[in-house]
Amino acid sequence: MARIVMKFGGTSVADLERIRNVARHVKREFDAGNEVAVVVSAMAGFTNQLVAWTREAAPLHDAREYDTVVAAGEQISSGLLAIVLQEMGVPARSWLGWQIPLMTDNAHGVARIRQIAGETLIERFRQGQVAVVAGFQGIAEDNRITTLGRGGSDTSAVAVAAAIGADRCDIYTDVDGVYTTDPRIVPEARRLDRVAFEEMLEMASLGAKVLQVRSVELAMVHGIPTFVRSSFDPPDGPQTGPGNLPTGTLICDEDEIVEQQIVTGIAFSKDEAKITLRRVADQPGVAATVFGRLSDAHINVDVIVQNVSADGRHTDMTFTVPRADFEQAMAVIEASADDIGYEEVSGSADVVKVSVIGIGMRSHAGVAAQMFKALAEKSINIQAITTSEIKISILIDAAYTELAVRTLHSLYGLDEA
Amino acid sequence: MARIVMKFGGTSVADLERIRNVARHVKREFDAGNEVAVVVSAMAGFTNQLVAWTREAAPLHDAREYDTVVAAGEQISSGLLAIVLQEMGVPARSWLGWQIPLMTDNAHGVARIRQIAGETLIERFRQGQVAVVAGFQGIAEDNRITTLGRGGSDTSAVAVAAAIGADRCDIYTDVDGVYTTDPRIVPEARRLDRVAFEEMLEMASLGAKVLQVRSVELAMVHGIPTFVRSSFDPPDGPQTGPGNLPTGTLICDEDEIVEQQIVTGIAFSKDEAKITLRRVADQPGVAATVFGRLSDAHINVDVIVQNVSADGRHTDMTFTVPRADFEQAMAVIEASADDIGYEEVSGSADVVKVSVIGIGMRSHAGVAAQMFKALAEKSINIQAITTSEIKISILIDAAYTELAVRTLHSLYGLDEA
Repeated sequence: MARIVMKFGGTSVADLERIRNVARHVKREFDAGNEVAVVVSAMAGFTNQLVAWTREAAPLHDAREYDTVVAAGEQISSGLLAIVLQEMGVPARSWLGWQIPLMTDNAHGVARIRQIAGETLIERFRQGQVAVVAGFQGIAEDNRITTLGRGGSDTSAVAVAAAIGADRCDIYTDVDGVYTTDPRIVPEARRLDRVAFEEMLEMASLGAKVLQVRSVELAMVHGIPTFVRSSFDPPDGPQTGPGNLPTGTLICDEDEIVEQQIVTGIAFSKDEAKITLRRVADQPGVAATVFGRLSDAHINVDVIVQNVSADGRHTDMTFTVPRADFEQAMAVIEASADDIGYEEVSGSADVVKVSVIGIGMRSHAGVAAQMFKALAEKSINIQAITTSEIKISILIDAAYTELAVRTLHSLYGLDEA
Repeated sequence: MARIVMKFGGTSVADLERIRNVARHVKREFDAGNEVAVVVSAMAGFTNQLVAWTREAAPLHDAREYDTVVAAGEQISSGLLAIVLQEMGVPARSWLGWQIPLMTDNAHGVARIRQIAGETLIERFRQGQVAVVAGFQGIAEDNRITTLGRGGSDTSAVAVAAAIGADRCDIYTDVDGVYTTDPRIVPEARRLDRVAFEEMLEMASLGAKVLQVRSVELAMVHGIPTFVRSSFDPPDGPQTGPGNLPTGTLICDEDEIVEQQIVTGIAFSKDEAKITLRRVADQPGVAATVFGRLSDAHINVDVIVQNVSADGRHTDMTFTVPRADFEQAMAVIEASADDIGYEEVSGSADVVKVSVIGIGMRSHAGVAAQMFKALAEKSINIQAITTSEIKISILIDAAYTELAVRTLHSLYGLDEA
């Protein structure tokens, strides 16, 4: 017997037929003697409809009321799943954020979870009940509904898993696991049986859209093994695969991964724009001014590259911002020209960030050198480089995305045998 | 300055354009210095969609989960109206049943209101805020959402009015008031400026679909003047009409009605079926058996007529049931034939109940005699008669509905001058 959380996204509960399929997955785990909490998203498309209504109501609207409206989606899907489970003979009860309660801060629309009364759900497990938890929502101290931001149901699932001391959090999604890269670009991409939390964190933040970044952070902090699998797998019959698990990817501690690869995956993100400041003064405070102004405008800066000054007085500075914020960021920089002091600003939304990720890099030299050499052989110009312990990210012309990703995927031996 | 409740039904909040129209009505009252609580239904058609989903999930489903799903409709509309009001510069906050709280018993799906923490809303009035209350929903002691049954938003509105000590409850609907009878059948039907609670209660329960019966009961018990008006009236500009009110019908205490008519209105209900038992034993316990069996099958009996026995040993008994329950009621009676003891049972769904209603009847003799004479002149056969202090109801062949209603409407001087 284990205590598990099962999370199903919007496409998995898009209609009653699919909700019944979800219920069969839950029944399988329940019948096997497990204590089960299910976390569900809203029916696919439903949240978009609700969001559209709030925008139609007023372009700039109160976040408290937005949360009240939008949280209705998960309220509906959790109630419907509870009904279907009961119909299948599985005792079930829906739980809204305020009923558990799942306490958050009061940052409406992008709330962060503070505390979950896991004992409420555990008490129901003892009564033989499955808990169907409405994802994405919580309640703030002022008794108002909050939501966790788009994709927040993943975070709900992992946080609930931590709160009830679950043995595992299963994320059912519309793909059958995490791949070495996007299979639409590299047909040879392989599904990873296991991936370390740290690696998944980089992949999630770099554009692999399987899991929300915050949920991976939470899983890592609380050490919750998180299993990504397809909700379209047949729900009944024996589950096969490594460690008695069906096809999927287990996100876990690195020491649970026996055969550690040097490079685990190639991620890429097209949601980037590059801004370069030429000949800024090489003196303290300049960077603070640039990034302070952007921060004031709520623009997140990602890659920052600043070269050592050639003449000791001036230097060049390059950074990336989300593509959606590009025009605004350029305007902010131009408006601050006198305070920053630069000779020229240029920008381009035509860039892509490609990243090579792998915990094995820590102990292996030469990964970057191989990378630069392989790209040079294909005449791909690297516009900026940034590295961490377990990843190397480069900025290149967007036109070379596919070529670069395929080249690197093959270079590090990730192609399917 | 007054404290008022404004209630808007599903067609009044069917889309964002109509919600904006509702908001203008609210803004008018707010700008006039009133303290305002608005009670809203779900957007038209939305509740039906949610109900259909629960049925698709399981034909016989848990009422707790049904309530969780269905209450989402009012959650959405109340949040959207709060947003639109804020956009118009009216401070507003949405209130769900559990947030006020609006406590009910735990009869899920058909819950009855026990207590409303009106002080929560009054506190917000003091802060200059309009309270937008999600109708139709409450919370039971076990912390689960309850709903009040279809049309329950009217009841929510009147109950909130009582809880906050409102001066008036305005019911905005898709008609401009209460009529002497259905204008689709009698073009000469007149809108009533005022109608007494007791009369409205009879009209509501007899098929005039303007207001839910329970809301009229509540308004009567708490003495809340309830004003029925059209939500399609222009929301801005001066409000005209009797007592500074716009066109509509005020439901109030009878002593506030100066010119009391003998007959106020003619109601009719086609939702009836008639069952007659011939030659049942005229002895104690027989009626208890008949209506006990029907009650066990959750069938409501309305009109009951039993004649004085002719031979001292047998009598005939006629009663009506909702047309939807007719077949089941017949089956129950036939299955209980031995216990009841009757010679013959017959039934017909082809009947209509027509009622003449008016508080003036109390002090005027001859109303019934006039009625029977007028119908006899049109050769309309009366199948059963039942009376109360302020109404006379008859059962007739459904084919004569229009003729009977028109005849009575004209007989009692209700036709428009």
